[in-house]
Formats: sequence, structure tokens, C-alpha cells
Amino acid sequence: MAPTALPAEPVPTPVGPLKTKSQDESSSFSLQTQELQQIDVVLRTFRCLIADLCQQFNGGHPGGAMGMAAIGVALWKYTMLYSPRNPDFFDRDRFVLSNGHTCLFQYSFLHLTGYSHMTLNQLKSYHSARIDSFCPGHPEIEHPGIEVTTGPLGQGISNAVGLAMATKHLAAVYNKPGFPVVNNMTYCMIGDACLQEGVGLEAVQLAAHWKLNNLVVMMDNNQVTCDGSADIANSGEDINAKMKATGWNVIDIEHGCYDVQGIVQALRVAKQSADKPTFINVRTVIGVGSKVQGDAKAHGAAFGVEGVKALKAKFGMNPDESFVIGDDVYNFFADAIPKGQKAEQEWNNMVEKYRAEFPRLGAEFELRVQGKMVDDWRSLIPKKEDFPTTPTPSRKSGGLVCNPIVGKLGNFMVGTADLSPSVNMMWKGKVDFQNPDLRTACGINGDYSGRYIHWGIREHAMAAISNGLAAFNKGTILPVTSSFFMFYLYAAPAVRMAALQHLQQIHIATHDSIGTGEDGPTHQPIALPALYRAMPNLLYIRPCDSEEVAGAFITALEHTDCPSIISLSRQNVEQFPTNSSRHGVQRGAYVFMEEEDADVTLIGVGAEMGFAANARTVLGGKFGIKARVVSFPCQRIFEQQSREYKQRVLKYRSNAPRVVIEAYAVNGWERYADAGYSMASFGKSLPGKDAYKFFGFDGGLIADAVEALVEDVKRDGVESLRGEFRDLNTRGAPEH
Amino acid sequence: MAPTALPAEPVPTPVGPLKTKSQDESSSFSLQTQELQQIDVVLRTFRCLIADLCQQFNGGHPGGAMGMAAIGVALWKYTMLYSPRNPDFFDRDRFVLSNGHTCLFQYSFLHLTGYSHMTLNQLKSYHSARIDSFCPGHPEIEHPGIEVTTGPLGQGISNAVGLAMATKHLAAVYNKPGFPVVNNMTYCMIGDACLQEGVGLEAVQLAAHWKLNNLVVMMDNNQVTCDGSADIANSGEDINAKMKATGWNVIDIEHGCYDVQGIVQALRVAKQSADKPTFINVRTVIGVGSKVQGDAKAHGAAFGVEGVKALKAKFGMNPDESFVIGDDVYNFFADAIPKGQKAEQEWNNMVEKYRAEFPRLGAEFELRVQGKMVDDWRSLIPKKEDFPTTPTPSRKSGGLVCNPIVGKLGNFMVGTADLSPSVNMMWKGKVDFQNPDLRTACGINGDYSGRYIHWGIREHAMAAISNGLAAFNKGTILPVTSSFFMFYLYAAPAVRMAALQHLQQIHIATHDSIGTGEDGPTHQPIALPALYRAMPNLLYIRPCDSEEVAGAFITALEHTDCPSIISLSRQNVEQFPTNSSRHGVQRGAYVFMEEEDADVTLIGVGAEMGFAANARTVLGGKFGIKARVVSFPCQRIFEQQSREYKQRVLKYRSNAPRVVIEAYAVNGWERYADAGYSMASFGKSLPGKDAYKFFGFDGGLIADAVEALVEDVKRDGVESLRGEFRDLNTRGAPEH
Repeated sequence: MAPTALPAEPVPTPVGPLKTKSQDESSSFSLQTQELQQIDVVLRTFRCLIADLCQQFNGGHPGGAMGMAAIGVALWKYTMLYSPRNPDFFDRDRFVLSNGHTCLFQYSFLHLTGYSHMTLNQLKSYHSARIDSFCPGHPEIEHPGIEVTTGPLGQGISNAVGLAMATKHLAAVYNKPGFPVVNNMTYCMIGDACLQEGVGLEAVQLAAHWKLNNLVVMMDNNQVTCDGSADIANSGEDINAKMKATGWNVIDIEHGCYDVQGIVQALRVAKQSADKPTFINVRTVIGVGSKVQGDAKAHGAAFGVEGVKALKAKFGMNPDESFVIGDDVYNFFADAIPKGQKAEQEWNNMVEKYRAEFPRLGAEFELRVQGKMVDDWRSLIPKKEDFPTTPTPSRKSGGLVCNPIVGKLGNFMVGTADLSPSVNMMWKGKVDFQNPDLRTACGINGDYSGRYIHWGIREHAMAAISNGLAAFNKGTILPVTSSFFMFYLYAAPAVRMAALQHLQQIHIATHDSIGTGEDGPTHQPIALPALYRAMPNLLYIRPCDSEEVAGAFITALEHTDCPSIISLSRQNVEQFPTNSSRHGVQRGAYVFMEEEDADVTLIGVGAEMGFAANARTVLGGKFGIKARVVSFPCQRIFEQQSREYKQRVLKYRSNAPRVVIEAYAVNGWERYADAGYSMASFGKSLPGKDAYKFFGFDGGLIADAVEALVEDVKRDGVESLRGEFRDLNTRGAPEH
Repeated sequence: MAPTALPAEPVPTPVGPLKTKSQDESSSFSLQTQELQQIDVVLRTFRCLIADLCQQFNGGHPGGAMGMAAIGVALWKYTMLYSPRNPDFFDRDRFVLSNGHTCLFQYSFLHLTGYSHMTLNQLKSYHSARIDSFCPGHPEIEHPGIEVTTGPLGQGISNAVGLAMATKHLAAVYNKPGFPVVNNMTYCMIGDACLQEGVGLEAVQLAAHWKLNNLVVMMDNNQVTCDGSADIANSGEDINAKMKATGWNVIDIEHGCYDVQGIVQALRVAKQSADKPTFINVRTVIGVGSKVQGDAKAHGAAFGVEGVKALKAKFGMNPDESFVIGDDVYNFFADAIPKGQKAEQEWNNMVEKYRAEFPRLGAEFELRVQGKMVDDWRSLIPKKEDFPTTPTPSRKSGGLVCNPIVGKLGNFMVGTADLSPSVNMMWKGKVDFQNPDLRTACGINGDYSGRYIHWGIREHAMAAISNGLAAFNKGTILPVTSSFFMFYLYAAPAVRMAALQHLQQIHIATHDSIGTGEDGPTHQPIALPALYRAMPNLLYIRPCDSEEVAGAFITALEHTDCPSIISLSRQNVEQFPTNSSRHGVQRGAYVFMEEEDADVTLIGVGAEMGFAANARTVLGGKFGIKARVVSFPCQRIFEQQSREYKQRVLKYRSNAPRVVIEAYAVNGWERYADAGYSMASFGKSLPGKDAYKFFGFDGGLIADAVEALVEDVKRDGVESLRGEFRDLNTRGAPEH
């Protein structure tokens, strides 16, 4: 049945004066009575639909999605450019639902606007046991129409900043007068949480710093969180004043549950912003129309059978019918498909002319759109003989390998969390990604075409925004971040989101293990590798010298479906030109120094390889013990090798015990070794060499411990090692 | 030699009108000419000393410490109450150096004010190889005069919020008219980074929300970071306006390198703030006086021999002498010791009278000062027979165990990151920790005596501020935090800082593994346990039922020297009243179901114990295979047991293989098991039971896989298992 007419409640919204791109372009927008009535029907239908979808399995998050209905109408009907028949249309506006738990909001608009996968039947699979559902509890990038996976709060808003950056950058590189081939907006919905979570607060600083005027963040300001009134944990601040002080345009919408006209007008003003991102503070009522409207109870639970009936009665729908979407509602959105197809056709035509007019740039643009590299990166990787053979910090090797590639290939955007002098990721002639006004304002060079990013001291946003850069269009931008490895603990929630979303990016993590020295235990990672080695779909690669650094980059670049962390030393590490092999790295582990009838296998890892090699020498010279050495830069890659290869490297069932040597917690190495020479405590502030020494990392000490193990094995038989891992380093935990 | 006089550059600082505690208490402060001259000598001496300390080992961070010298004089000479002869004086003002890399700033003032451990010889151990140094590269809590370990940026400012909260809370509970037994201020220095890092931004929101008027944050605003001008990554915002909008008093100091008088005046105004924390924006010049002053080069490197000489010449010191501190400088600070002793004596006298006047409260206060529990918590732990025997979510068991204890014992402060309805940590009659104004302002109850904390959606600040609560005075406050386990990845950098600092706190991490269900892979931790199990000095405890939850709490409470994470299920888990044992938990692992001549040992963990028990039944019934079951809630505790105990549990060298069953990445379990039934991919959005099923967690499927393993062992011999871990779950990685 068609719902009976109820008065809508549109209220004109005051919009303050804003610096706009053009005074000519008008932002005025007004709806006629008939359209207001249609909107009224859509809002009521939409809200009852949400209630039904949550009620069927008695769960989910109805309140937010219902509260935001008018925002959705303003976006999908009157504002965003998108093509339901081709969700991946390159120049579409991007929409990010940072408050991902309200996913029914997005799913339902995808349904109404004609995304063919999102049938009503699919909508009903929300919270069901269907394994082929397109409606998981939070939006997932795998599914059409979803730009990024959201849910962990603060991530989506950061991704949105990255998406807007990507547009700015690509536009600066490729657009020509009359050819705005990259010209989309990014719209992001947030709840209260995304401006409480630190990563969101970092990201909004950067959006303002970069003057991302193509970014609009809309806050579903319903003043309700799980615990009740938002005031319970956020009474101190004036969010509008704060966003203004941070450098954003701010627009208020007072009656966000109904004022579609005001929201559209605000969005038009936002689109005309000359030099700032725009924050639209939309006051809504959570669960509007339900008996628990405005209450935390509307947040994360269904309304109950009676509650849903009451809602429908209030909204003039039949309480005894469920999942009712009238033809008038579908008709309202019926122009979405043709509009999208037209836009796409126009864009295709423009690109065709662009390619004719600018053949070189056009060809490159085409490659970027296809997500391909613009040139052959393999030829740019230095050869083994190009590297110094004297001890070299592997962070320096990182620069030697990475900088020529990223300097040449425009796909890369490389940045650092304020550690440019330490991480060696600057290439000759680099241009910073900056808003060009900064040049006149404070003499800082750079523009949007730049590809070197100063993230400030914001590791979490660095990784989270990079996820947005990578998600803009698969392969178009390959983000490289850099910081001390320890601070990738700050970044971890976003690094994880990249792994979950199969987004390629490379994290250059320098100053690993305890060799970093004087900065002390706060800066010396011990447990962090265990996290990244256990993380699905991520490569943690720890090369031992320059040649292995080359192998690490090749591996990271070849794996286009996952993020990689390349873990590098602050300090000099020995070079092993006769042993180390980039091809070995590409297999995860390989025989580094072979020895027939070896008494023991030493597994050397990364910056600690020198100790393994030295221990081998001592074992031979002092004890006549024959040690072979395996280099083991990446566990996950090794896991993907054949049983035969693994056997060749690890010699399962031989009589020689295997000892891993690494200045980290040993957890996880038990799979590959019988014993470990490792760290069981936090580190210590000492010069790097002394820190190693303090914790027993010394070829002689290691050799002594390994010799004792070999003796034990001779005495007790190799079977004595089964299932009882030995920790050989007695100095690894002197204090803690 | 005494330095020749140079003109100081004090500049009067405009201080805006502020709401003050009392109009009677004057904030005016002026220095006489003679004192200004003394200060001039101190500043010059101090700055040359810093340069010398960095130059000796050609490293360290001189610039910030030099720039902040006048701030230090204002704090240690004219503002802070402290007792160099008793650095732990209970009612001392707390000072936190959140920009911890400038640690020489603090070390040098500790030296000048007479902290006896901080000799000039010790100062010179900065960046040396001395293992007994009190001067590590970042301040460490182990050393006298250091309140918290800082270095990872954003942590210290958050700790400072916790320290100020502790004062507010204890004052509300214990102070009586005429007896301000808890009455200290907290001062925190920050650099540019702490208001870029998200955790710092979360913390300043909360400080304003709680109206912590006893907190002063001073920004060393030198506009220089490692990468150059701070504008390079932070041009968009007006920090003063932003802090005001966040709810802070803001005071500007224009000439922070010299204007001691202005800084002291600002600090006095801050101390009188009625209802806001105070932000003092101090403009300084990094490396002031050096040839690289104002430049990023002054940040993290020594000045070179000639650079130091030039500095000394400029400051009227002898360029050929090093580490010169004249008697006039020592004399300037000579009143610090007697002032501290007097303050301590007065406080002791007050507390003595207080105890006489309020015997019950006084006795309790005494216990709190000693860091003891105010009552016997052991008697408050429910007995096994108190628990339901029907399936129960272990998060519910968590509430059953925790709430009676925390309700009764004032030592506990318990909070949640906006998940009160989910984590079950509210006790009957709880009072929220809130600023009392909130009651009239928006009807939210609570006051500073309250012990239930609404952290908002700020997991990182929750943990970081809790570190400050715990660090206020060892044992006085025991913070309990709660959230979904997945979000302890957001909190991880702060949880790690607690482990590093030996701070006791309990993190209640609910919704663990994949049983959490519909929220999907974003909310299902897979790799996170590997991090926390590898982290030194932290207990990750995963109980399988209510009795084990009791054991987990007992274990966490007994370990007063480290943080614990108690990992709980969202969903119902089977109860094992005849098998589970709190005493077993206290040993990390124990025999859960014994079986003579077992063919296999199943290791069940936490919420997945039910699958282990079920698989055992199927193995016996379907295959005639005898399986014993071990419960393994905590690896770290188990590691501390004797070889004999471990042998009894794990039966090293028996012919029965051991299989661990857990819906996490298996990394690290290889130490205890020969095979694992685990997860190798991220999770999936499905109802909890269906998610388990989708990934093969089902007693029957597990039994089939274990049976195949047992057959393999019978055929190939148990030695075939040595060093080659078996992954038994073929459904653990269907997509990723």
C-alpha cells in the first residue's frame, strides 16, 4: 500500500558566508511541493525498511541509518555522481560510510538507486547466515558500490581524506584546460566516534593542511552513543569552532532528519569551497519515529515486533506489512541509472579527445586508470654489484633501492611521519605533495602534483589515509609510508585494514630490533614482529643486507594484493655479497651458507644475520662444529613454498638442530626452529652495539650456547628436542 | 669561570582574563633585577651544559632542551612543589616530559635542584655505554624523579591527564575542609608532536570534558620538527583557537626562551583556573644561541666541537671549558631541598591530624598511600558453585567476578570505551567519574569521587590515561578498562607502555575470536593475540568458562607488577564445572580432562574449549581414539612453571601428538603443540555459530582432522612430527 501523506518537516538552514570557487556558480537549491511530498514518502518508507531489516534477525543497528535517511536522499538523489550499472566508473564521486555499523543506510540506497547486485532479497541477508551476502555487518570493499571497508571507527574518515588526496593529485598531474579527466568529490558520513578517535582527529588536521576542498565530511550528530548521551564523554568542546580552528568550512544543519533541501544546499556550497574541506554538522534524531527515538536503545538493537509496528503506524505505513517499498519510491530514484550512464559516456568521450590531444599523457593516464605501472620497475632495481660491500645500514640500502623506482614511476606516493632525515626515502628532485598556497604563505615548496608526503607525527593517519590512496582505484596509486618500526604499532589498526582489504602498500619500517640503540626500550620493538607475522595477508620482510633489501622490494612490488612491511636497521649491517640473494628473499627463506653433514642449522634474520655468521665461524674454529646458515626474511612467503623446497632449506628430520637468532620475542619461530637465541624482555637505552652486547648478542656467546645445545643433542638424541623448544639466550631477559 | 653578564630578554606577557578559583589569590609575579641577572646566568649555563652533554658522544637531542630552559626555571624554581630528598613524596606536583627525547632538560633540572642520584657524572652518562645510567635516551619511570616513561609521542600528555584525574578523584574521596591531603598539580611539557598524535588529541578532549583544572600543558612551540618547519605538515590550524574550542584555557607566551617572569605568571593563572585545564603556548627557539638555532638541524644531532665553542662564546662562557656549572647556579636552586622538606613535613603533620580527626577514612587513606587494597579482595571472588552451569557468555562471567570486587574496593577505577551495555562492567550503585557541573548542565550524574569512567570512543587514550592513573602512586589506583578485544589494537601502544613500566592494570577485552559474529572481519581479531602473547611483562589470559574467569581475575590481581588482558567471549560458552579450575589458570595451563594412554592431547583455549571437548567425545565415540584435554589460558604464566609441572601437562616426548584448537592465528602455539586447528585468514560477517562453522570450527570436523593426524603418527612414528608443525584446519583460510 502507498503510505498516506504526512507533513514533512523541512526547515531552511542558515548557511554562513563561505569563500567559494566562483561567485557565478550558484548554490541555491529549492524543492517544489510535489517533490517534497515524494521525499516524505521516501523517508518514511526507508525508515520502516531499516526497522524491518533489523527486526527479521532481531539485531543490527537501525537508529543511525534511520536518522540519516534525509542525508542519503540529498546525496544519492541530488548530489553525487555515480553509475549504478558500473560501480567502478573511474570519475565517480566517492562515498565513505565511516560510521560503518549503519551500513543498512548505504545498502538500502544502493538498492533504491538500482545497483543490480543489491536486490531486496540481498538486503534481507543482513545479519543472516548467508555466506554469499552483500550485506555484511559493516561495508566491505569486495562488494560493488563500497569504496572502502569500514567499521573500526576513525578509519573511514581517514580513508576519505586519502580518496580526496588521490583526486587532487591525479587532477594536478593529468587535468588540462577543458579536460578535467579527474574531477570527483569525496563525501564521508561520520558519527560521533570518528571525531573522538585519534586517527580521525589526525586525518582532519591533514585534510585542512592540504586544503582538500573536494572533501565533505557530514556528521550524523545525533548526540547519542552506546553509553547514552554523547555529553557523557564529550561535554567540553564546541565541535564547530574546533573544526573551524582546524581549518575547515563549517555548515550547520539543524533539522537533519527532514531538511533535504537544506542539506543539498549545504552540499552545493561545500562543492564550491575554494580552499577548505567542508564539515557539515547535521543534527539528527537516532531511530527517528520509533518509540526509542533519541535514545541509546535505538543504536544497536532491533525495536521488537511491536516497536516496528508502532513505527509503521506513526509513519502511515501498514503495520502488518513488511519490506514494503512502493513504486513511487523506486520511481523517485529511477533517474540514477541513466544519469550515471550519461556521465560515464561524457567522461569516456572526454578521455578519448584527451588522448588524441595529449598522446603521451593520455597513454600514461590510460595505464593509471587500468591500475598499471607507467614503466617497467624491474629494470630500475639496482643489481647486486651496484651496492657497497662495506657495512651499510639497511635503511640506507632501502633508499638505494626504492628511490630510483619511485623517482621514475608516477604511481608511487611516498611519505614519512616526520622522519625524512632518518628513513632515507627522499629521491633527487622530489616534489612535495602540498597545497600550492603554502609556497607564498610560508615558503614551503610543493603542489598537488608532488608525490612526497609529509605526514607530520601521525603514524596512524599516515597508514589510514594511505589506505584511501590505494583504494581510489586499484593500482593507480601505490602508497609507500615510512617511520621507525616501533611506530607501526601506532599505525597497526590501519595497516590491518589494508591487509583485510587486499590493498597494496609498502611500509618502510626503519630502526628495527634493539640495534637502534640510545633511544631505549620505548623505541625498540620486541613483540611487534609477532603481530605482523601473524597478520593474514601481510608480508613482514626483514632483509639482512642490501641484496636482500632489493629482494624485499621486488617481493613487495610483485604482491599487488597485500601490504608489505620492509623492516630495516638503523645501524650498519654486514654485507654478504657471496651469500645473499634477492631470489632467496622471494622464496621467504633460503640456504645462506651450506655445509655438508652440518651439526646445526643457524637461522639468521635481518640485522642479526651478522651474529649468525659470526657464531658459525666461532663454532667451527673453537668447537669444530659445522653450522649451516639459513637466511629467513619472510615467514609468510616461505609458507607458500612447496614441501620439497621447505625440506631443502630446513632439513626436517635431520639430526642437526635448528637455532633461530633474532633480537625479538621468539614467538612463532618455534615452527621453524628447535631453539632460539632471542629477546624475552624489553630493550635498553645503550649505544646499539652495547645494547646487543648487554642482551647477549655476540657471536662468541651465541656459539657457546649453540655448542651446549649440540652437545645435549649428541647425548640425548635429536628426538629429545621434539615439542620442547629451547630458549638459549640467558641474557635476553635480565630485568623484566 | 663565571659567565660574564649578558642582557636577558624578558618580555612581559599579555595574559587574558580567565575564570579563576578565587579573586583574592593573586597571580601577579615580578622578578627583581638581581634575580633576573641570576636567571640569565642559569639559562646560559644550562644551554651550554646541554650542548656539552650531547657533544661528548656526538648524539642526542640538544635543541628542545635548550629552548625550554626558561620554562624549566619557571617550573622548578618558582612553581612546582617537590622534594629532591624524597622524589616519591605523595603530594608532590607531577611533571611529565611528553616530548621525552628532550630528556636532558629534565635530567639537568633534577641535577641542579639536588636530586642526589643525579650527579654531574650521571648526567654525563647520557648516550654512554654505562648500564647503570640514570639518563637513558628517554625518561624512564624506574629512576627517581621520573613520573612516567615517555618517548612515543602523545603518551606522556595522556599520562598527565591520568595523573591529574587521580588527584581529582583522591581529593574528592579523601579531602576534608582544612585537610587538603591530596592537592597537587600536574604539569606537562609537550612538543609539536603531542597535539598531532591522535592519542594526545583524544586525551585533551577528555581533560576538558572532566574540567581538570589541576592540569597544565605547556607547549614548546618552536615550530620545528625533524622534517623542518612544522608548517610542512600542520599549516591549517589555529592551535590556540582549537584548544579553546576543545574547552581549555589558553595563555600565550611570546618570548619563551627568556621570559621566566611571564611563564611563572601564566603558571599562577593556570593554577587558579576554576574549571578548565590550561594550555600555555610557549613560543621558543630550538637550539637557541647555537648556529643552527631555529632550524631542524638543532633537533636531533650534536652541534660539533666548533658549534659548541661558538655557542659558549655567544653566551659568554669559556669555549675551552666543558660541563661548567658555577656555584651561583647551584646556589640559585639551593632552596629546592629545604622547601621540599618543609612541604613534606607540613603534609605529614596534616595527615597525622587528619588521621586523628577521621580515624576510619584516615586509616583507609594510609592504606591507599601505601598502595594497598583497602579490603581483602580474595573473599569477594565468587566460588565455583556461585556460577551458572548453563552456557554463559564469558563477558557475563567477567561482570559476575569483577563487579563485586570493584564495587567494594575503592582502589579500582573501571571504565569503558563507550561499550557499557556490551562489556558488563557496571556494578550496582556505581557512581560515574564526572565533573559535577555536568549534573546541572545536562543532567548527567557523577562527580570526581566516582569510579566508573566513560572514556568515549577513545581506546588509545583510555589505556594511555590509565597508565597515568596507575603511575600516580604504585597501587593507589588500579585501573580497569574495557572494550572489544579488537580495539585493543588501537590501544596497543599504551598497553605496551604499561608493560614496559610495570604498571598494573586490567583490560577486559570482550568479543574475542570469531564468535563475535555479525560485525564481521573488522571486529574479529585474528593476529592480535600473537602480539600480546609475545609482549614482555604482560599477561594475556583467555579463560574458557566462569570458573576460569575467576582464575583470570585472581591471576591479574596477584600480578601487581604488570598489566593483564582478560579475553572474553560475546557468545555463550559451555561451562565445565567438573573440569575447570581457577588454580589451573594460575599456572597458565593445566590438565582439563585426563586420559590414561591417550592417543592425543587436545589443547583447548578460551571460547574454543567447547570444540575441544566435543572433538574429544567424537574421537572416542567415532574412532575409539583416546584424547586428553589441556586447558591453556595463559602462555606467559605457564612459562614460569617448573619443568616438572610443564611435563605433567604437556607430556613431552610421549607418543601422543598435541593439537591446539583456537580460532586465532596459530603463531606461537608451535612451542606447545605439534599441530594446530586455527585460523589463517581474517574472519567473516556471519552469526557467531555460523562464522565458526564456516571456518571449520565444529567438533566433528576437528575430530576427523585429529584422527587423520593420529593415523599419520601411527604410520610414520611420532618422530615424524619433530620440527614440522601441521596445520589441520583446511577451512581456516578459504578466501584470503
